[in-house]
Amino acid sequence: MASDSAQVSAAGAPRVIVAGATGFAGALAAHLLWRHPGFELVAVTGRSELGRRLDELYPRYRVPMRIERLQTERLQALDAAVVAYPHAAAAPTVGALRELGARVVDLSADFRLRSLSTYEHWYGQHPRPDLLEQAVYGLTELHREQIAGAAIVANPGCYPTASLLALAPLARAGLIADVVIDAKQGVSGAGLRAGSETTHLSMAAENILAYKVAAHRHTPEIEEQLDDLDPAHPGLKVQFQAHLVPLDQGELASCYVTPTREVGAQELTRLYRDAYAAEAFVEVVEAPPGTREVRETNFCRLFAAADGHTGKVLVFSAIDNLWKGTSSQAVQNLNVMFGLPETAGLA
Amino acid sequence: MASDSAQVSAAGAPRVIVAGATGFAGALAAHLLWRHPGFELVAVTGRSELGRRLDELYPRYRVPMRIERLQTERLQALDAAVVAYPHAAAAPTVGALRELGARVVDLSADFRLRSLSTYEHWYGQHPRPDLLEQAVYGLTELHREQIAGAAIVANPGCYPTASLLALAPLARAGLIADVVIDAKQGVSGAGLRAGSETTHLSMAAENILAYKVAAHRHTPEIEEQLDDLDPAHPGLKVQFQAHLVPLDQGELASCYVTPTREVGAQELTRLYRDAYAAEAFVEVVEAPPGTREVRETNFCRLFAAADGHTGKVLVFSAIDNLWKGTSSQAVQNLNVMFGLPETAGLA
Amino acid sequence: MASDSAQVSAAGAPRVIVAGATGFAGALAAHLLWRHPGFELVAVTGRSELGRRLDELYPRYRVPMRIERLQTERLQALDAAVVAYPHAAAAPTVGALRELGARVVDLSADFRLRSLSTYEHWYGQHPRPDLLEQAVYGLTELHREQIAGAAIVANPGCYPTASLLALAPLARAGLIADVVIDAKQGVSGAGLRAGSETTHLSMAAENILAYKVAAHRHTPEIEEQLDDLDPAHPGLKVQFQAHLVPLDQGELASCYVTPTREVGAQELTRLYRDAYAAEAFVEVVEAPPGTREVRETNFCRLFAAADGHTGKVLVFSAIDNLWKGTSSQAVQNLNVMFGLPETAGLA
Amino acid sequence: MASDSAQVSAAGAPRVIVAGATGFAGALAAHLLWRHPGFELVAVTGRSELGRRLDELYPRYRVPMRIERLQTERLQALDAAVVAYPHAAAAPTVGALRELGARVVDLSADFRLRSLSTYEHWYGQHPRPDLLEQAVYGLTELHREQIAGAAIVANPGCYPTASLLALAPLARAGLIADVVIDAKQGVSGAGLRAGSETTHLSMAAENILAYKVAAHRHTPEIEEQLDDLDPAHPGLKVQFQAHLVPLDQGELASCYVTPTREVGAQELTRLYRDAYAAEAFVEVVEAPPGTREVRETNFCRLFAAADGHTGKVLVFSAIDNLWKGTSSQAVQNLNVMFGLPETAGLA
Repeated sequence: MASDSAQVSAAGAPRVIVAGATGFAGALAAHLLWRHPGFELVAVTGRSELGRRLDELYPRYRVPMRIERLQTERLQALDAAVVAYPHAAAAPTVGALRELGARVVDLSADFRLRSLSTYEHWYGQHPRPDLLEQAVYGLTELHREQIAGAAIVANPGCYPTASLLALAPLARAGLIADVVIDAKQGVSGAGLRAGSETTHLSMAAENILAYKVAAHRHTPEIEEQLDDLDPAHPGLKVQFQAHLVPLDQGELASCYVTPTREVGAQELTRLYRDAYAAEAFVEVVEAPPGTREVRETNFCRLFAAADGHTGKVLVFSAIDNLWKGTSSQAVQNLNVMFGLPETAGLA
Repeated sequence: MASDSAQVSAAGAPRVIVAGATGFAGALAAHLLWRHPGFELVAVTGRSELGRRLDELYPRYRVPMRIERLQTERLQALDAAVVAYPHAAAAPTVGALRELGARVVDLSADFRLRSLSTYEHWYGQHPRPDLLEQAVYGLTELHREQIAGAAIVANPGCYPTASLLALAPLARAGLIADVVIDAKQGVSGAGLRAGSETTHLSMAAENILAYKVAAHRHTPEIEEQLDDLDPAHPGLKVQFQAHLVPLDQGELASCYVTPTREVGAQELTRLYRDAYAAEAFVEVVEAPPGTREVRETNFCRLFAAADGHTGKVLVFSAIDNLWKGTSSQAVQNLNVMFGLPETAGLA
Repeated sequence: MASDSAQVSAAGAPRVIVAGATGFAGALAAHLLWRHPGFELVAVTGRSELGRRLDELYPRYRVPMRIERLQTERLQALDAAVVAYPHAAAAPTVGALRELGARVVDLSADFRLRSLSTYEHWYGQHPRPDLLEQAVYGLTELHREQIAGAAIVANPGCYPTASLLALAPLARAGLIADVVIDAKQGVSGAGLRAGSETTHLSMAAENILAYKVAAHRHTPEIEEQLDDLDPAHPGLKVQFQAHLVPLDQGELASCYVTPTREVGAQELTRLYRDAYAAEAFVEVVEAPPGTREVRETNFCRLFAAADGHTGKVLVFSAIDNLWKGTSSQAVQNLNVMFGLPETAGLA
Repeated sequence: MASDSAQVSAAGAPRVIVAGATGFAGALAAHLLWRHPGFELVAVTGRSELGRRLDELYPRYRVPMRIERLQTERLQALDAAVVAYPHAAAAPTVGALRELGARVVDLSADFRLRSLSTYEHWYGQHPRPDLLEQAVYGLTELHREQIAGAAIVANPGCYPTASLLALAPLARAGLIADVVIDAKQGVSGAGLRAGSETTHLSMAAENILAYKVAAHRHTPEIEEQLDDLDPAHPGLKVQFQAHLVPLDQGELASCYVTPTREVGAQELTRLYRDAYAAEAFVEVVEAPPGTREVRETNFCRLFAAADGHTGKVLVFSAIDNLWKGTSSQAVQNLNVMFGLPETAGLA
């Protein structure tokens, strides 16, 4: 633990809260931070279930703290916060926490997009556009250095996480002429403990379902990042499609890339090995990865193949949508922000 | 089809509605009656989703009718109704439909119990106690003759259906000194399309859970019927326990009977074979039945065994909780009420 | 029933067997033919489980016949057969049944490909290339007229069935410049009752897995048919990718088409409506279809959308891989071959 | 880590192997010992898959060791072994490892029963009855002190683990007159990676199935232990029944006890709290525990209730059948045997 860090409260681990701990993402963040050797979880807040213990709502997470209302005036010496609120509800809370001096990892979409007009197209008016300049896009492997110094980290969506880790090596090499991303996810992605028609086991079982066809909010987030990675080919239009499959946690993004030039198997292998050789949480593997292999971990497993028949490049990216896709990546970002080993609390 | 029946509208099949068709049970009843050769489904009603087509809510049931509000004054020449309302909400609707002259199969608990005080203990004040004397308990195999002439048939709960079919042969023979019923069911038993914390795939998956421990509403229904079957041993206290397991439709009741005297394998076999030889929908089998064997059917499969080690008698009863446990048994009852072959529309 | 058909045995329904009834596909074919009003199922054969009753192996299919060894010399007046053998094992049996005069629907790949060299690339030497000229590709909606008179019908694979029904309207209109097919399927596709590492619930649960990356046998079958549908653009290379998801029966093919020219929403709708207006088993729907909607039916549900952002055309095709993808399509083909209504036994 | 323990090899952690690491139980034991701070995993052996890496067979367990053949002559300075072989195959290997001086936790049934004749009734001839006197029954919470000094620890079956932890407080108090144990388990209990008809997702999904009715091998193991706990009431006959439900890992034992005298809620609570107050891995909870709460942990959660209606006492016991029911309890036992904190490697 980086006890000499200036960012740490005197004589102790950084003090962190989880705001919005009653949903799946917040509860998991609380679980990870509760047992984290380098942070002190000082409160879990919510807008419902006040006074109930989190280990009553989520027994397996074993966090023996009570849900309280977020009252920023009562939080002292707060170093950090994870905010797990819905889109648009998050930004004002992030603002309030910033005023306390806390550094924030925000799980919503509120600070993910550079383009304010794109944000407002998908989510309506932005509650705190003034904060956007403090925010860094929190895909750790792509923006580690900026994250280290950021006041606000916009944790990526789970779909962009899987997709961008899959595509970054190709994008950086200027190799993507066209791309189709077919993503599949379990029902925990819906986020709400309360359940719904869609997440009802009786509806989800024995079902495979495409949703938000030709209209997915995650596309601009992916496109902005790909533009950054490959400035020579700006404006790539990404075909992204989400599907719901009958499992709890797990996400596979299957990416079909038409390359700008022929790419052979050897070059492909080298490209991916080099890109991620130093990464603790991205594993380039030699067979298509199943989501089960990464369940309840912060790992992303990638498999890339050149298809001699079509000339396309195929990349398969498996993550746990709640872990690397959401809450454990938030902890990975906190580790980076507070100078802790990146794997602390995540091994 | 009993076209000469006095109960049938002139020159046609009996006209039937399903009231409360937006829940799982009502929707399935509508599905079965829509394609039934002996009934004409004239309306499906609900208190929400008005104007939407039922095959939009439940595509696989393929009923192309719109949900309408129940307006009894607009229903003409109605012969029958299936009422799929929550407990206590059902009775007033049953009453209104009776005033139209319709014969009703009610899926709620409102007319299942003979004892008004027992009802009121579990469900609160009874909205229409005056109708109780018109009601017959609708476990078809036990009360076929009374059902044939009944104005109101109180369709049994799914747990009592599986349990009573398992225990009836022993009870009639005066053989039950004590009984433990351990029942397991899929999440469709919860009934609501809307979903809940409990039925969320993320909560239900990988879970086995006992619920309503030592306090289950279904016990008195089972006890009243066992008292009828074995008047010589009144007042048997039944230990009933429900469990939720991660599947959609299916229910297994495992019954552990301490017999009043030693029962051998041969006697047991004869007892069950004799009891159900003439039944179309109860099958006595030679190995423990899986719920999968009866999925989406009106069958109940029973397996009985004498345990030489303990002296107990074990009976396993498998049904589909939504079919024989609810909606297809309602259709079986309608068949009996209107003089149709009992298997009509259910094969 | 076409009782006056010359193809029918004197004075009765056509007599049919299922060869290979112990696997999932054969067992389902037996189930459908056993209760079919227009065929007489005279035998179910297998190479294992001899003497056991099929309803012991598959209780829910309720076929009370014993598995026997296939002895063609003992089969008399056989009109038809469904052969559910593995690839390469099927052709000799098809040949033997042809010598008896039976018309055969073969579920294997042995007669699906026009190109013998392509077959031999994927499956090894063809045991009976002499029979190829008798065979018709059995995607009913595309080849109904030839199927009616065919001696051998090569039932399509489940992946080509879903894919080709999705793509045929675009192909016929010459609109496919490039296509990615991302297909997802439940574990019943593996076919074997015996189970395996892959189909073990403990391995399949919570897993999403791409398999046979860049090397799928189903591609040539799809490409040959697309070439037929769009002779003006021969040699289209199809990017097909299969995935395993944790359910039993169900398949969704998500097709991403780069069109040869801009295609608008209206044109797309008209194209699909027109193509399938007369089809009993293909439904063009207005929202992405879930596989649950077609479970245990012969229906294929299609949803097509034009993506204004990318210019691509998206088509989603949902079937039950064991039904329309395999065994119920075999029955649909038998209906066509024997002059029965195409929906007979499948409603 | 007890580095000064006499039982530990000079200057290091105890050296341990897992024999039979290709099955579910052995693989999990290897996973736990690989990352255990107090043991050094020196080999994983198997009878198949030789030379393959364990993390290829079980990617999520992340053990980068190759499967080797067990060659006792090549093992040096071996302190301990977990043997995960089938019944009867285990005993000879346990013997060979004992000759090397290793202390063994055996996961099979070979050393669980005191009565040789009972063993031979269920499993056939015992290969090494001479070793029985070295063996201690390894339900840690019941036999901790003997386990500490044991040469062979017979790890309990998962059913007896859940059942005995549920019943021990009542048995010790002489309160069990009669008991029915209805146990439900996921398919991982079957143990074999290879899969089978029963564990095939297509068979297990949507199924609830009782198995080995009136003939379960686990009964004598439970009865012997209950006799020890309540010597005043010897010879209690336990009604035990196992069920398969569609999940991967998880087990719930529902126990229905007819008490020898009336037991009130307060007494019951005190009995259970007192019995397990000092236990790290047994949690007495206030609502029925779901198996999901203990998934992938060494915890057992117990809920006890007095049923005023029937006078019976109900106890529900939830464990993960592969963890506390098998492999993590083996590690708990190794911790006890080698003087390590009992929770080492299991938190």
